Amino acid sequence: MNSSIELKRHSLSHIMAQAVLEMFPEAKLAIGPAIDNGFYYDFELPRTLMPEDLPLLQKRMERIIKENQVFECYTEPIAKAIDFYKKLKQEFKVELIADLKKAGEKEVSFYKNSTFVDLCRGPHVESTGKIQNGSFCLDKIAGAYWRGDEKRPMLQRIYGLAFDTKKELNEYIQMRKEAEKRDHRKLGKELGLFTFSDNVGPGLPLWLPNGAVMIEELEKFAKEEEFKAGYVRVRTPHITKGKLYELSGHLSHYKVSMFPPMKLDGDEEEYYLKPMNCPHHHMCFAATPRSYRDLPLRYAEYGTCYRYEDSGALFGLMRVRSLQMNDAHLYCTEDQFEQEFIAVTEMYLRYFKRFNIKKYVMRLSLHDPRELGRKYLDEPELWKRTEDMVRRAMIKAKVPFVEVPNEAAFYGPKIDIEVESAIGREFTLATNQVDFGIPKRMGLSYIDEKGNPQVPLCIHRAPLGTHERFIGFLIEHFGGMFPVWLAPVQVQILPIADAHVAEAKKIVDALRAQFIRADVVLPTETLGKRIRNAELLKVPYMAVLGDKEIEAKKLNIRDYKTKAQTEFAVEAFTGKILEEIRTRAL
Amino acid sequence: MNSSIELKRHSLSHIMAQAVLEMFPEAKLAIGPAIDNGFYYDFELPRTLMPEDLPLLQKRMERIIKENQVFECYTEPIAKAIDFYKKLKQEFKVELIADLKKAGEKEVSFYKNSTFVDLCRGPHVESTGKIQNGSFCLDKIAGAYWRGDEKRPMLQRIYGLAFDTKKELNEYIQMRKEAEKRDHRKLGKELGLFTFSDNVGPGLPLWLPNGAVMIEELEKFAKEEEFKAGYVRVRTPHITKGKLYELSGHLSHYKVSMFPPMKLDGDEEEYYLKPMNCPHHHMCFAATPRSYRDLPLRYAEYGTCYRYEDSGALFGLMRVRSLQMNDAHLYCTEDQFEQEFIAVTEMYLRYFKRFNIKKYVMRLSLHDPRELGRKYLDEPELWKRTEDMVRRAMIKAKVPFVEVPNEAAFYGPKIDIEVESAIGREFTLATNQVDFGIPKRMGLSYIDEKGNPQVPLCIHRAPLGTHERFIGFLIEHFGGMFPVWLAPVQVQILPIADAHVAEAKKIVDALRAQFIRADVVLPTETLGKRIRNAELLKVPYMAVLGDKEIEAKKLNIRDYKTKAQTEFAVEAFTGKILEEIRTRAL
Repeated sequence: MNSSIELKRHSLSHIMAQAVLEMFPEAKLAIGPAIDNGFYYDFELPRTLMPEDLPLLQKRMERIIKENQVFECYTEPIAKAIDFYKKLKQEFKVELIADLKKAGEKEVSFYKNSTFVDLCRGPHVESTGKIQNGSFCLDKIAGAYWRGDEKRPMLQRIYGLAFDTKKELNEYIQMRKEAEKRDHRKLGKELGLFTFSDNVGPGLPLWLPNGAVMIEELEKFAKEEEFKAGYVRVRTPHITKGKLYELSGHLSHYKVSMFPPMKLDGDEEEYYLKPMNCPHHHMCFAATPRSYRDLPLRYAEYGTCYRYEDSGALFGLMRVRSLQMNDAHLYCTEDQFEQEFIAVTEMYLRYFKRFNIKKYVMRLSLHDPRELGRKYLDEPELWKRTEDMVRRAMIKAKVPFVEVPNEAAFYGPKIDIEVESAIGREFTLATNQVDFGIPKRMGLSYIDEKGNPQVPLCIHRAPLGTHERFIGFLIEHFGGMFPVWLAPVQVQILPIADAHVAEAKKIVDALRAQFIRADVVLPTETLGKRIRNAELLKVPYMAVLGDKEIEAKKLNIRDYKTKAQTEFAVEAFTGKILEEIRTRAL
Repeated sequence: MNSSIELKRHSLSHIMAQAVLEMFPEAKLAIGPAIDNGFYYDFELPRTLMPEDLPLLQKRMERIIKENQVFECYTEPIAKAIDFYKKLKQEFKVELIADLKKAGEKEVSFYKNSTFVDLCRGPHVESTGKIQNGSFCLDKIAGAYWRGDEKRPMLQRIYGLAFDTKKELNEYIQMRKEAEKRDHRKLGKELGLFTFSDNVGPGLPLWLPNGAVMIEELEKFAKEEEFKAGYVRVRTPHITKGKLYELSGHLSHYKVSMFPPMKLDGDEEEYYLKPMNCPHHHMCFAATPRSYRDLPLRYAEYGTCYRYEDSGALFGLMRVRSLQMNDAHLYCTEDQFEQEFIAVTEMYLRYFKRFNIKKYVMRLSLHDPRELGRKYLDEPELWKRTEDMVRRAMIKAKVPFVEVPNEAAFYGPKIDIEVESAIGREFTLATNQVDFGIPKRMGLSYIDEKGNPQVPLCIHRAPLGTHERFIGFLIEHFGGMFPVWLAPVQVQILPIADAHVAEAKKIVDALRAQFIRADVVLPTETLGKRIRNAELLKVPYMAVLGDKEIEAKKLNIRDYKTKAQTEFAVEAFTGKILEEIRTRAL
């Protein structure tokens, strides 16, 4: 992809190198590619850069842009190119060209603007003047090993941000600032949502009371929706004999992502932590003989699975080793498949609405015929049939989707769903998978209308993904300012002085009797500090309680979101908040 | 204990042996003790006993009792006793006496009634006539190895039931019959509550939809009660580094009950399944600095633990390897201890009421000073102080209790609670423990009013025990006839014919919109069969729906418990059942 913005970013990396060479003629140049939000270039310099250098460099770059220097491309035979850089003592470039020679290249291309020349495949913008004034800025300095190899020299990398327009650049900077403020690890700590413990292990979040509230509320919500949609629930252990995964095929297809087994003394069996709930659910299905009349049968469980992720890959709540999944498995006949699949898709859309998720992408992940029998179950016809079924169902549900080859599960095609947070960051949250393979392998069957055994299809779905990732997403999406029904603390009453505590407690007791999460914040600290704390915790409703309020029998409620202050009688406020909770208002 | 009933039971085992010898003079006698509900005796006989033999033997026993034979005790030197039995070719008795000789005994005692003599320590009733007519019966025949050793001869064991009075015997037989009908394994299968899978492993129940409903309802109930009582919730992973249990002391005191560790490649740490939730909760406590103002802090979690029980010890839901615990840990100061402990005890009593548990025993389990440093933490003063604190709190709460030495947890004294089911069977359900040891070991602390660090006390409590054992208990206690709020299916509507299905669905939809667990049972089977099925499932409310009901816009509700039939408008019935659910009526 050489999109217009990529040309600009890559051109800017040349312009930056040019500016660096002006400042440090001894600078040795390494490489300078375009990246997602701009560009960078790695240099060996006579001294360590300081943040103060960046505006100076940026000024030089702006001058070069103003001069509207033309980018010219030319090629040279390899030997001559090496010679050129040897003379300039640019050893990194020499090494790069030597590698190209080894790879069989006979000549290399250069790009030149004014006096600056760089080894480069191109392409570039026509001339430096194509870059809009104010559409880029130098961002930060970092260290980077030459060729990423810690045994090679440590270089200095300068990052720049670049967009087509000044407006876009400013929006990006704004979004990034906001994202930093909303970082789920930062907010997770500030709001008392979760913690990690060295004694327990990496990737294993401990959910503190405020985070546990969110989990409970999400589960309550999901359970209600699933009840309405005709699901039933099961509860299965977190461990199993290895035998189950030999049967299901997980040991041959999935072992690398699983925790190692537990070997019991005097027991031949090895036990595993479950990395998925499906084989356990299949055993529930298999517990009694099934008839077509039992289908569709929809088993839901908020099951916790464990997957072994390399400790280097772990990241906050986004990549963890424990996964509390909003899981369900729908067993159905082929005739029922389309309706069930569409219903699941519509459930996703309902959920998105509930959480104010406005942008999402659904990707239909297909198999690759060349990987049959390795990455995928060797059932070419079933692959074709189920992929067609999913495609048809998606079209019928009128949900836009894109198709991606070679990303299916090993047992069937799937829909991967990416959502975009309120500030435009993308998260892969949920999947909706078809399984034509494992029910058959595990011998699941039902008796059809004619009395013959048939293998059910199975839909795996997890619209709210895992608590870990979904709450991580919600923290950023809402910036910690959760809808009332999800807010860990919903109301704080701040009695001004000791004399007002008894009345505050009475009010809070009345709210708590309705299961509203209300607290009294005792006057052991100043009112100002308590108000600031409530704001740090982003408590949706706060009320200061003094003589005036007690006398008037009113609560002066401050709304965190709107900053409005409104007077309510306690009953009226209770009614208002209960209605917001009941409807799960945004 | 040689209670009167034990004397009778033991005497009956002699009388039975006497009767057996009358029938089979070649019989060789092994041993015949009193047991919980009667007695048994093991014999080697010339032929296999048949059930028809029991009434014949019983008649002979009744004759012996009528003859009012006097039990006389006398002793013999060991050599003479061996001689005596050698002559009678009673090799088992010879072996028993030889063992007594090895143990240093010089003489042994015999009991004689009429012509029957048996090696016996006694004591016995005065004479056979002390046994009330009809107060015993022969129960069953079983096989048993001599001395429990499968390499020794297989003997025939006859069991008898015996009580003080005929009435008590009959009550016991009645209770046992009822208990068999209520057996949680039998009802668990019939009601579709849970299953086990060979592929998953023994002691690991898979909860089917009807059982999962009960779990969900119990959790909802516990969470509401805990919210009211000022608990907050946490959620912690099921695994941890071994490091946590080195810190807590579980690896040295509890390892034998734990699953073996998982060894990660390239990671020095071993990971364990948690056998208890406390160390994880302690890490939540330790996540931030604590002040006395944060106490009491009450962390609740329905956490699933895993304990390694020998597969031979597993029994239905009563002894399992996965334990979903109604757990909580209360951190408090010594001053707060009494109030917290009493509040917990009162919560137990409230729960008992909710589940109609009328009889319970609380046992205060104390340490044994001789086991300090081995079975118990070596803190003699803390033991004394905390045991006193618990004793005082129990007295203050006015809850009767008994004291039992040498049954404390390794970290402090505890209250063990046994409850009695509706049919009089006892279950050990729950504990309430004081922990003065582990918070200290794990470095937990809070800053007191004077700014000094202090170690909190910790109360471990689990009033509803584990889902596994508690639901096992409830199944027997209610005989599967659960209160409406706990019933897996609350209402079934049975349309008489296809013409009534649409209306039935409409009614069920209206009920389900209120989260009432209502189903339509389609007329694919005869009405009679569907009614029988509803009764087998013990569905609290059932209504047959035909032209008459549809026309009258009424439901003719059959109440499973009372067998009454009552007409309701749909709204009135909805109101009634919602109220029953809301109040969790019995």
